[in-house]
Amino acid sequence: MTEKRLEATPLETVPLRQIQIHDKFWDRYIHLVKDVLIPYQWDILNDRIDGVEKSHCIQNFRIAAGEADGDFEGAVFQDTDAAKWLEAVAYALEISPDKDLERLADETIDLIGRAQCEDGYLNTYFTIKAPNLRWTNLKEGHELYTAGHMIEAAVAYYEATGKKTFLHIVERFADLICRVFGPEEGKCHGYPGHQEIELALIRLYRVTGREDYRRLAKYFIDQRGVGENYFLAEEKGDGYSRIFPEFAGYDTKYSQSHLPVREQRTAEGHTVRAVYMYCAMADLAGLYQDEGLMRACRTLWEDMVRRRMYITGSIGSSGILERFTTDYDLPNNCNYSETCASIGLALFGKRMVQLTRDASYMDTAERALYNTVLSGIAQDGKSFFYVNPLEVWPDNCMERTSREHVKSVRQTWFGVACCPPNIARTLASMGQYIYFTDGDTLYVNLYISNRAESELAGGRVRIEMESDLTNSGHVEIRAVRDGGAQGYSLALRIPDYAKTYTIRRDGEAAAEALEGQISLAADGIRIEKGYLYIEGIREKETALAIDFQVLPQFVRANPKVREDAGKAALVKGPLVYCLEETDNGGNLPAIFIDTRQKPEESYEEDLLGGITTISLRGKRLTEDEWQDGALYAGRANRFEDTKLRAVPYHCWNNREPGEMLVWIKELL
Amino acid sequence: MTEKRLEATPLETVPLRQIQIHDKFWDRYIHLVKDVLIPYQWDILNDRIDGVEKSHCIQNFRIAAGEADGDFEGAVFQDTDAAKWLEAVAYALEISPDKDLERLADETIDLIGRAQCEDGYLNTYFTIKAPNLRWTNLKEGHELYTAGHMIEAAVAYYEATGKKTFLHIVERFADLICRVFGPEEGKCHGYPGHQEIELALIRLYRVTGREDYRRLAKYFIDQRGVGENYFLAEEKGDGYSRIFPEFAGYDTKYSQSHLPVREQRTAEGHTVRAVYMYCAMADLAGLYQDEGLMRACRTLWEDMVRRRMYITGSIGSSGILERFTTDYDLPNNCNYSETCASIGLALFGKRMVQLTRDASYMDTAERALYNTVLSGIAQDGKSFFYVNPLEVWPDNCMERTSREHVKSVRQTWFGVACCPPNIARTLASMGQYIYFTDGDTLYVNLYISNRAESELAGGRVRIEMESDLTNSGHVEIRAVRDGGAQGYSLALRIPDYAKTYTIRRDGEAAAEALEGQISLAADGIRIEKGYLYIEGIREKETALAIDFQVLPQFVRANPKVREDAGKAALVKGPLVYCLEETDNGGNLPAIFIDTRQKPEESYEEDLLGGITTISLRGKRLTEDEWQDGALYAGRANRFEDTKLRAVPYHCWNNREPGEMLVWIKELL
Repeated sequence: MTEKRLEATPLETVPLRQIQIHDKFWDRYIHLVKDVLIPYQWDILNDRIDGVEKSHCIQNFRIAAGEADGDFEGAVFQDTDAAKWLEAVAYALEISPDKDLERLADETIDLIGRAQCEDGYLNTYFTIKAPNLRWTNLKEGHELYTAGHMIEAAVAYYEATGKKTFLHIVERFADLICRVFGPEEGKCHGYPGHQEIELALIRLYRVTGREDYRRLAKYFIDQRGVGENYFLAEEKGDGYSRIFPEFAGYDTKYSQSHLPVREQRTAEGHTVRAVYMYCAMADLAGLYQDEGLMRACRTLWEDMVRRRMYITGSIGSSGILERFTTDYDLPNNCNYSETCASIGLALFGKRMVQLTRDASYMDTAERALYNTVLSGIAQDGKSFFYVNPLEVWPDNCMERTSREHVKSVRQTWFGVACCPPNIARTLASMGQYIYFTDGDTLYVNLYISNRAESELAGGRVRIEMESDLTNSGHVEIRAVRDGGAQGYSLALRIPDYAKTYTIRRDGEAAAEALEGQISLAADGIRIEKGYLYIEGIREKETALAIDFQVLPQFVRANPKVREDAGKAALVKGPLVYCLEETDNGGNLPAIFIDTRQKPEESYEEDLLGGITTISLRGKRLTEDEWQDGALYAGRANRFEDTKLRAVPYHCWNNREPGEMLVWIKELL
Repeated sequence: MTEKRLEATPLETVPLRQIQIHDKFWDRYIHLVKDVLIPYQWDILNDRIDGVEKSHCIQNFRIAAGEADGDFEGAVFQDTDAAKWLEAVAYALEISPDKDLERLADETIDLIGRAQCEDGYLNTYFTIKAPNLRWTNLKEGHELYTAGHMIEAAVAYYEATGKKTFLHIVERFADLICRVFGPEEGKCHGYPGHQEIELALIRLYRVTGREDYRRLAKYFIDQRGVGENYFLAEEKGDGYSRIFPEFAGYDTKYSQSHLPVREQRTAEGHTVRAVYMYCAMADLAGLYQDEGLMRACRTLWEDMVRRRMYITGSIGSSGILERFTTDYDLPNNCNYSETCASIGLALFGKRMVQLTRDASYMDTAERALYNTVLSGIAQDGKSFFYVNPLEVWPDNCMERTSREHVKSVRQTWFGVACCPPNIARTLASMGQYIYFTDGDTLYVNLYISNRAESELAGGRVRIEMESDLTNSGHVEIRAVRDGGAQGYSLALRIPDYAKTYTIRRDGEAAAEALEGQISLAADGIRIEKGYLYIEGIREKETALAIDFQVLPQFVRANPKVREDAGKAALVKGPLVYCLEETDNGGNLPAIFIDTRQKPEESYEEDLLGGITTISLRGKRLTEDEWQDGALYAGRANRFEDTKLRAVPYHCWNNREPGEMLVWIKELL
């Protein structure tokens, strides 16, 4: 393992407004944000879509503001749907201003402001339904979680528009929270039942400079799991009233409150809670140069990605409680692998790169973004997966069985609608992953075609990237500098799958690697922790032509992963592939691929928005000898040759519904 | 498929008192009934065992009888623990009288009698806790289920001892039930939420000749699923009060009340409910010569055993609701496969043989008895499996996951203790499966060493059977007749696994088959529906020497069983084999057996009470190349040769706890 050191100064992202993405692969998803998701979700927030579970979200704010009658409806954290929508709108506006949309957002923000209580409290569930029960059920009430999403949205909206109304609303709320929570006597010594506010308070600190926000974030993290468990103690409190019956017999691991965070060694409990917490821990490690916190981040990351993560960059082996289980327990057909958890994993990985300048974290973040996050949304933007299995047999995805959470087709909307708006805000802010900077070096993390600008080494550098990463692996980068006397650097992430690559600089070979061995590195080029640094660039204009070898490759799991023994997965670059019934017929588990034969790829322009498909050869168990309908018999296996077509996992279930399979059995 | 006709006269069993079992294989389990289970369970019923969940069962009867203070404790059907204990005691006494035990049983019966209400009602839960709620919640209350077990026990006790006290108690209760339920106006038109009373009433009819009991059993079966669902209607009733919160959103399939029973085509819902109902349907089909009911029995049997049953003769693919799922959905590591369901499956199969004289039903019953029923109990008789998985990895048998119901070690006792006493009564009455008779022919179903007597063809025939079925497959039967002028017949079941066999009669070759082809059949021998009939036996003494070929054999599943594709199971005669970690090391799913190599067997006298183990050869994925702890990588599979030892499934988890595996991957 590479040693991942905590650097003195974490890398910064490049503001979204300085990055315009136009990418053959990503456009099919990113265009959905403004064209489909934002208007569709707005209609849902306002209960205007027939046949979709009612959200009641905006109506809740009206009722809380005293402008409508009625009762609160929806989940305790229903407000977050509006918050995530506003956050997505903010990113969309930052990239591409839109007066009508901005007006709609402003009106929504005004409504939120009117729903805020005198003392700054903002939460329609408690305001309408249980004003006396504020802060009495941190375990289940999601007040701090909801506050966190509201703060994130307000910070994003301020960054996008420069407008401060929303920021002031959440500052008032944050001020209240600072008055209620903290180490001081008389304050509540609790912490959130669902982490999220910690990272949000840090974002709020970054735009306001308010020390108390940062300090409270640190308090929530430091206090968690210390002494008597807060949530168990809270249940004995006076005002306590259970919200979720399934929380009876609460396991403190569920909310990562079983141990002080610095002592946690394994990724436990509810996955989304976990990764949101890890994000805040990473942020605080950077802000406070806290090596102990950083050590915990590294340990937890390693446990997750080396023992508890699917090849699709997803986490959560158990549908029940949407949780981690044990090392190497990675069932493919009854896992949870929530879309939101992969978003959180990417957010955590991004922070770890910023802290360590180690590109390997981005390998995992990229895997999550290109596979599970995208599989969470249909290509028409109107239906969604919460659960992202690696093997689906629609017949047995039944209610009241161990697969009841696995859906074989995406759902239009959910009562607990966390994933759809989370996907929207993620797609709208993809730019945050592409570049980092330390002022002198521009780190290129993801190869997504875009035009960007960044201040570097006292000047300004414009970047034009044209990427065909998911097909040929060819990437061209043109960097044009404007001003600045010193040389600047570019740090190109060498993805873990690109063991073989060539880089040409202004037409000249600059670097080459073959199967992981560097065979050429021109002057001014060095490789460190997965980044190839091109240093001291003084030219007005620099052209890089990169060829990552992204041939289809068979990948195997560590033999300790019992579910994958004797199976192979097919990957190409960042993309994991799968077999779908519509291409390959049913009963996919009866297929055995011949991994000695070379998989053949072909780009299919008209398929699923343009994808590279991969042809495989193998054998398939035939049912010829089982025509009598026997269930078990001492019969030989009979096979027929079969040709298979694999498609990228992210686009499964966009054609005929049917079976799907990632890990395919091998002929051994 | 063989056509399975409803014979005019169902076959009768031979009374237990006429069968003395002394069998090398079965003795290790059967001795437990009197030596361990009956005294141990008695202590449990009386809360005398430390560290075991309190039963409170006998105390409930004392409280209901007004002889003790306190509240009811336990499940609504807690009374059935006493009933099943008494039923097991009855069988034990029938085989081998025991004055002390009989006195204890009599005292218990007297207590039960004192706990009975004036009007005949007998159920301590409702008597103590909710006397006003009698019959208001048939769906969850288990009153008729509890009554059924009480009736079965009373019939067994009467048959064993000739004493009528208990019989009169349950007759008074049955009379009450006949007054409450039935088609007449003013009576309740409901039926049991958990079937059991139907088959019990038929048993009661058989010993009392009371038509109204038989008629009520028929009514319960005929009425089920007709018109508006009773259980859904009942929820709207005045006195209705929910007992099990998990029954909210009740699916009528759960209790097989979704359709009239004659229209049911697939085995649905809770498995134990299903098979107990099928037993009653078969009984009624025989009693009323009801071809429509018989057709339903055949259809449901076929659906179960040809599409929804494990090779171990177990049913219930889903832990949630302990239920059937869909055709060919047979996951091995998160199934339910309840011990009680296999008992019910054997009871149903037995009845189908009695009705059709088709031995193939007994193939399945035998598979259930020799594998899942026995795996339900430890060889010391003190711990039990409810759930009988076919693949266990202890690490992931975790609470609050999809495997939370799967235990990697047997439990000492359960709050809902249906399985342990059910195993006790089954072991105590194994004789019921061995022989059937129609008065002229003795049907030999199971090859378990025993001495028996039966009236046949006007005389009496004594049978001595010495069986080594599970090892060499050699069976000797000596039949000595006493009186009777006509010839009698013996019908020997030819098990489905015995495709090759020889039978010698008084030293002469009488019948031979090779790989399913009959190569010799002497005069007076015919084969029909799996029985080999030796007809017109007039000799005073006849000696049969049977050699069933029971070599270890690799069995495969229908390729539609996705979980078993590319895997083989090892069977020998009626026994399914498995790999255990204690013999083969951990990570059993990383083992690939070479099915071209002949498995070698050896009898190990000192192992697990004497078992035949089987040696296999194969390869095992090594972790050599994964020492860096990578989770996924483009690495080749590396194998090492391995020699494996398989043991019979019934005796797994009687040594070191660890992994276990039935379906083993093959090198293909």
